[in-house]
Amino acid sequence: MSIISLTTDFGGLYPAAMKAVILGINPEAQIVDVTHSIRQASIREGAFALYSLVPYFPAKSVHVGVVDPGVGTSRRALALKAGPEGEEQFFVGPDNGLMIPAARRLGDMEVYEITNREIMLNSEISATFHGRDIFAPVGARLSKGMPIETVGNRVSDFVNLDFENYGVDGQFLVGEVVYTDNFGNVITNIPEDAVLKFRTFGSQVEVNGRKVFFVQTYGFVGQGDALILIGSHGFLEIAINKGNAALQFGLRSGDTVTIKVL
Amino acid sequence: MSIISLTTDFGGLYPAAMKAVILGINPEAQIVDVTHSIRQASIREGAFALYSLVPYFPAKSVHVGVVDPGVGTSRRALALKAGPEGEEQFFVGPDNGLMIPAARRLGDMEVYEITNREIMLNSEISATFHGRDIFAPVGARLSKGMPIETVGNRVSDFVNLDFENYGVDGQFLVGEVVYTDNFGNVITNIPEDAVLKFRTFGSQVEVNGRKVFFVQTYGFVGQGDALILIGSHGFLEIAINKGNAALQFGLRSGDTVTIKVL
Amino acid sequence: MSIISLTTDFGGLYPAAMKAVILGINPEAQIVDVTHSIRQASIREGAFALYSLVPYFPAKSVHVGVVDPGVGTSRRALALKAGPEGEEQFFVGPDNGLMIPAARRLGDMEVYEITNREIMLNSEISATFHGRDIFAPVGARLSKGMPIETVGNRVSDFVNLDFENYGVDGQFLVGEVVYTDNFGNVITNIPEDAVLKFRTFGSQVEVNGRKVFFVQTYGFVGQGDALILIGSHGFLEIAINKGNAALQFGLRSGDTVTIKVL
Repeated sequence: MSIISLTTDFGGLYPAAMKAVILGINPEAQIVDVTHSIRQASIREGAFALYSLVPYFPAKSVHVGVVDPGVGTSRRALALKAGPEGEEQFFVGPDNGLMIPAARRLGDMEVYEITNREIMLNSEISATFHGRDIFAPVGARLSKGMPIETVGNRVSDFVNLDFENYGVDGQFLVGEVVYTDNFGNVITNIPEDAVLKFRTFGSQVEVNGRKVFFVQTYGFVGQGDALILIGSHGFLEIAINKGNAALQFGLRSGDTVTIKVL
Repeated sequence: MSIISLTTDFGGLYPAAMKAVILGINPEAQIVDVTHSIRQASIREGAFALYSLVPYFPAKSVHVGVVDPGVGTSRRALALKAGPEGEEQFFVGPDNGLMIPAARRLGDMEVYEITNREIMLNSEISATFHGRDIFAPVGARLSKGMPIETVGNRVSDFVNLDFENYGVDGQFLVGEVVYTDNFGNVITNIPEDAVLKFRTFGSQVEVNGRKVFFVQTYGFVGQGDALILIGSHGFLEIAINKGNAALQFGLRSGDTVTIKVL
Repeated sequence: MSIISLTTDFGGLYPAAMKAVILGINPEAQIVDVTHSIRQASIREGAFALYSLVPYFPAKSVHVGVVDPGVGTSRRALALKAGPEGEEQFFVGPDNGLMIPAARRLGDMEVYEITNREIMLNSEISATFHGRDIFAPVGARLSKGMPIETVGNRVSDFVNLDFENYGVDGQFLVGEVVYTDNFGNVITNIPEDAVLKFRTFGSQVEVNGRKVFFVQTYGFVGQGDALILIGSHGFLEIAINKGNAALQFGLRSGDTVTIKVL
């Protein structure tokens, strides 16, 4: 089994170049496109995509992430191993925090700097496309069982990133928008347990000043009504039944959300 | 051989979650994205996508369909087997008609309600994402040869749906738009044989009040001219040579089309 | 190993129909979507996509290209073999130049007309969708090792296309836009060596009348500033650091670009 997932902000021809390189090294790879539509250079949005999906991937999966505004500068390239022994998953991408929340969610992690030129693409490394020239070939080799120590030295001073900047302040629950999906549902970083401690299903709250019900699923409110719920990602979501909450609330990733007791 | 097709209306990160679950169960699956761009909650459009494609898939293919406005309500989950013995294809999705025309097109079909919790995702079932929690794992197990009877009891009171609401009325041939493609071609539910009985190639007709020729392919009319033809799906299509018929005729799925003899 | 890449301008349900046909013939195929978003009927843009990607694909890969405004007319269907012996890649598509630059980039090539009905889809050939009915099944058979001579006779009078319409004229370097990516980067047909002979990194030039620096990567100029660089495709690109050059310069594929010494 060798699954390689791709999470990028570039679309166009670039994912195919990465896949060509991967299949040249590991013709048996199962390549899964997580998304190529991360908002451009939005490291936090890319990090959330990986974070929300890794629990569903099997052991030994390799996740290649390329949301990389620092490409061509001195930012380092990293490979990570995370999770309980025998159940590890791997990550390859830039040292900008992109992979950290996902790796940490799996358990203990080890972080390595990629410096070994012999495992990169066997031609000149471009200044603008490390996804193809470094991350894809390293990911493909990891998927074939290359020991992660081959990439370079272990490091501990990697760029950190977390989604734990949420909290309760009296009658307010405050968090951050981390993703908006194609339906316009607004996904926050406030996890299920924090929401359930704060309010019970059926209660009414105010979201950024608008009254909504906290319910189990869309159909509990009328068509066109706003609601909050625990979404399938396991986080508080703001939604409109058959409508677009991102547009109506004017929210996108990075924005603050304030839930107020009524 | 284990092919699993996905047809959904959600895009974003959700298809990747389904693929992760599928590959965790069947690492050898060949996953084919039919589309993740069905118009939101348009069961008929999703049904047409499956209906038009199943003849091209090989025996034993499993089709997972998730156009599911009733998710989280009491609508049932279904698994279907359809086609001549040894040539069957399988379907997994909600009980809202989505899979019925495609299954019926293959021949005899058997419909089962999915109630066996042991074949679902081994964690809590979300109220909003049965694609990941029920349909993907059941589809993956069917692709590995699990007998369909394992899912639950056979049922006969499933929600029906068909594309046969077309007909000839004197000098009028009336049908419904079931899909518009990326070129703006308007695909109707009027099958080839009904069209050919009505008019011969080369004749002129009126489509929603506009005069067009019935021809074999786009190039038979001038650039910018409208036409009707038998499209590659096997149905009457309205098109503009190098133009967008959906925009010019103002048609989208669900609309009525009237072809009049001239 | 049997990799089949798909490059088309159609999106929608059509790629899935091609994949179903391919997997029915070769269930082990690794299918890679190069893109289904080529600008409609833009043969040159499709040709550039293939041309820029083939160096990254392994030997024996089969590339199916369907940018095919002449479908249903008398234009021929072709299969090509290109590259050094033992390292060949294959191409299947229409005789309109689409595959020629990519094939020629690999080295010597042989071109065959596809006339053998027995290797096409075993049902009627549609007038509008040769991607599904001819190119997909022929590509799938080539990926399984069918000798290319099986498709039909070798031909030499195929439609040509090249990207070599660039040149230096005194203090001007003139080329053509061949692709614009999702970031709005404008990729031209002027190759690295021609650029480096013309100017050195760090020099300033005028691009269609606007002053920009020629640098190694985006970060060498200020945010919002325009630049030219050698992109990851190996060609001169016009970009804006964290901006959209295609919009700001008003350029799209086919347009002329003039670089002037300052």
